[in-house]
Amino acid sequence: MTPKKMLIIVCDGLSDRPVKQFDGRTPLQAARRPAMDALARHGTSGVMDVIGPGVIPGSDTAHLALFGYDPYKVYTGRGPIEAAGAGIEVARGDVAFRCNFATVDGSLRVVDRRAGRIKVGTDQLAKAVSGMVIEDIKVVFKEGSEHRGALVLKGPGLDHRVTDVDPHDEQRILEAKAMGPEAEKTARVLNEFVRRSYAALSDHPVNRARVANGQPPANIILPRGAGSIRELEPLSERYGISCAAVAGVTLVKGICKLVGMDVADVPGATGGLDTDYRAKAEAALRLLQTHDLVFINVKASDIAGHDGDFRMKVQVIESIDMMLGMILKDIHEDVVVALTADHSTPVATKDHSADPVPVTISGGGVRVDGVREFDEISAAMGALGRIRGCDLMPIVLGMADRAKKFGA
Amino acid sequence: MTPKKMLIIVCDGLSDRPVKQFDGRTPLQAARRPAMDALARHGTSGVMDVIGPGVIPGSDTAHLALFGYDPYKVYTGRGPIEAAGAGIEVARGDVAFRCNFATVDGSLRVVDRRAGRIKVGTDQLAKAVSGMVIEDIKVVFKEGSEHRGALVLKGPGLDHRVTDVDPHDEQRILEAKAMGPEAEKTARVLNEFVRRSYAALSDHPVNRARVANGQPPANIILPRGAGSIRELEPLSERYGISCAAVAGVTLVKGICKLVGMDVADVPGATGGLDTDYRAKAEAALRLLQTHDLVFINVKASDIAGHDGDFRMKVQVIESIDMMLGMILKDIHEDVVVALTADHSTPVATKDHSADPVPVTISGGGVRVDGVREFDEISAAMGALGRIRGCDLMPIVLGMADRAKKFGA
Repeated sequence: MTPKKMLIIVCDGLSDRPVKQFDGRTPLQAARRPAMDALARHGTSGVMDVIGPGVIPGSDTAHLALFGYDPYKVYTGRGPIEAAGAGIEVARGDVAFRCNFATVDGSLRVVDRRAGRIKVGTDQLAKAVSGMVIEDIKVVFKEGSEHRGALVLKGPGLDHRVTDVDPHDEQRILEAKAMGPEAEKTARVLNEFVRRSYAALSDHPVNRARVANGQPPANIILPRGAGSIRELEPLSERYGISCAAVAGVTLVKGICKLVGMDVADVPGATGGLDTDYRAKAEAALRLLQTHDLVFINVKASDIAGHDGDFRMKVQVIESIDMMLGMILKDIHEDVVVALTADHSTPVATKDHSADPVPVTISGGGVRVDGVREFDEISAAMGALGRIRGCDLMPIVLGMADRAKKFGA
Repeated sequence: MTPKKMLIIVCDGLSDRPVKQFDGRTPLQAARRPAMDALARHGTSGVMDVIGPGVIPGSDTAHLALFGYDPYKVYTGRGPIEAAGAGIEVARGDVAFRCNFATVDGSLRVVDRRAGRIKVGTDQLAKAVSGMVIEDIKVVFKEGSEHRGALVLKGPGLDHRVTDVDPHDEQRILEAKAMGPEAEKTARVLNEFVRRSYAALSDHPVNRARVANGQPPANIILPRGAGSIRELEPLSERYGISCAAVAGVTLVKGICKLVGMDVADVPGATGGLDTDYRAKAEAALRLLQTHDLVFINVKASDIAGHDGDFRMKVQVIESIDMMLGMILKDIHEDVVVALTADHSTPVATKDHSADPVPVTISGGGVRVDGVREFDEISAAMGALGRIRGCDLMPIVLGMADRAKKFGA
């Protein structure tokens, strides 16, 4: 049996919720999508929790899962997860921390580890400390919910093996210590950041107002839970396949590089609403000649969702359908094609949601169920059932006759 | 986007198996249930393995899962699971053990660790040792299948870090030893219990009869696998929501308190067949004003199942439907409503079964599938697919726009 080639098309933020003003349809349901429907008719469909049920995926964690990596295992420590949650991109080599805004007295003794569970103004405090440069390290800081925040150090020679500054108790703040010589620079930069946070926040207008109101000032940032992104086993070693990516948006390109894909340089693939769908289709067809797996990400559907623009999202979906039609015209049953999304971005909420995404897989030998349309509800009735994001790659590999037998 | 309120209604033991004498219908299929069907028509349905496929849930483990806690992680050691399985309620602070009925000689040397795999009479033997008080500790003991049983010690100052009495071998029984000073009382009480079990069982009529029949007497109880219930992170911290419960039956109330719900005192909510459905509906509507999540448990459907009374179960379901109708009349799309069960209690078997339970979720923005009726089979055709109990809470939170993003 000759292994088949594989094409995975991820329409970013494609899926949605029913919208009353449009007859209770989703943008995907409202769009003309002959190519998507043809794929569904000749394949097997289902829905997918990209990370897990009820978890809202970021595009980074979602793509890791779609490529078969458990995003909870890819990150070491809680820091990078907190940072990802706060919306800071964590690249390989960065060190990320969970942080508290806290209250210390003049001798840096912790008076309140949560600064009175501060609720407002942390965005302004975050701005006062983010962006500084210490030695050659760039500091990115973003507030989280209440007293929480995330810190990412970016630059050369960092290592996550440093101890916490947060004493987890009402005592003097701790000096971060390197757990090995390779982390000494990180500890030094981190301690300097904490000192500077105290200097920048002590007299900040937000804190002056808090003190005037009898509230404890959020006058220092206490990092803990240092972590970095693990080196990932590339797809080529993991599954023995060569992989190429056609993507416009930086974050997704970064993840593709992280898993060892050849990221194509496609002029016109902008990652925006103006992306050149025809150029993406042609690039994908070309790369299918040289690679076992080709991955396409189209970002525009997510952008329309974030903009809350139903009609724009419909239009984007119809453009993607046109792109898919071009591709399907030129390939045959020896390619397994999977069409799905990395998460839902409902126009009603203008942000990612935890609603599962539709998925359809087609190709020679793939079982054909009764699903005739590609949308959130029709796909859910398909033979694929409800799967998880990290199952997609193994399933596609199995259908492409590239999976390994476990047992005798 | 304003987060929505949430209402989760659990009909205890609701689902069932087809019954031949009633045209192969389940009680749920046979009942008039206009409100339940309306909910299904406007929402998304599926079936749920509350603990896992083929696992028969207890009401305690089921509710833990429905609230998003992994029941296998909530309990330390195997003791509390065995106790839960035997139907003993394990509260925080209790220490539970798995036990064997065993045969020892006069010098307390184990002759048969399973007392000849004793099959009958263990209920009487259990009664002879259960209920005793040692120091200020109450002893609850219940037989399990064959030679197995579960022991729960209840009272102040207990700790589960004690070694096994069961030598797991044919040698003299072991003295339980405290693994730290805080467990010394537990070890002392446990050793005393084992001594008293020998005294109470040696000359018990069941054992006299066994000896007369040439069978080894079940003359001692050998505890092992000490464990207790972990302190649980309350729902308020875990998900940042305020929660209230309307429940009549003690066990469920206990679990609700364990996860930090405000348990309402509703006069007339008895946890029995005579419960006041109208009072429950009114209490739930009232609590929705002050809390983010309101949980309702109705026990009566389980009781009718345990009684094996098909007609009674139909009647209970119709009463629950009336209660649901009252609630739905007064709430709008800004509440996500989930209707489900904690387990099946088929009238044919008169006990809990591992059959999955139907679930339907409705509310503003929730995808609407083609399911038009709420029953075990119709729900299984819905877009929700087959989920697990511990996924319900994250899914409901996601639909209520209360989930957190993981990633960027």
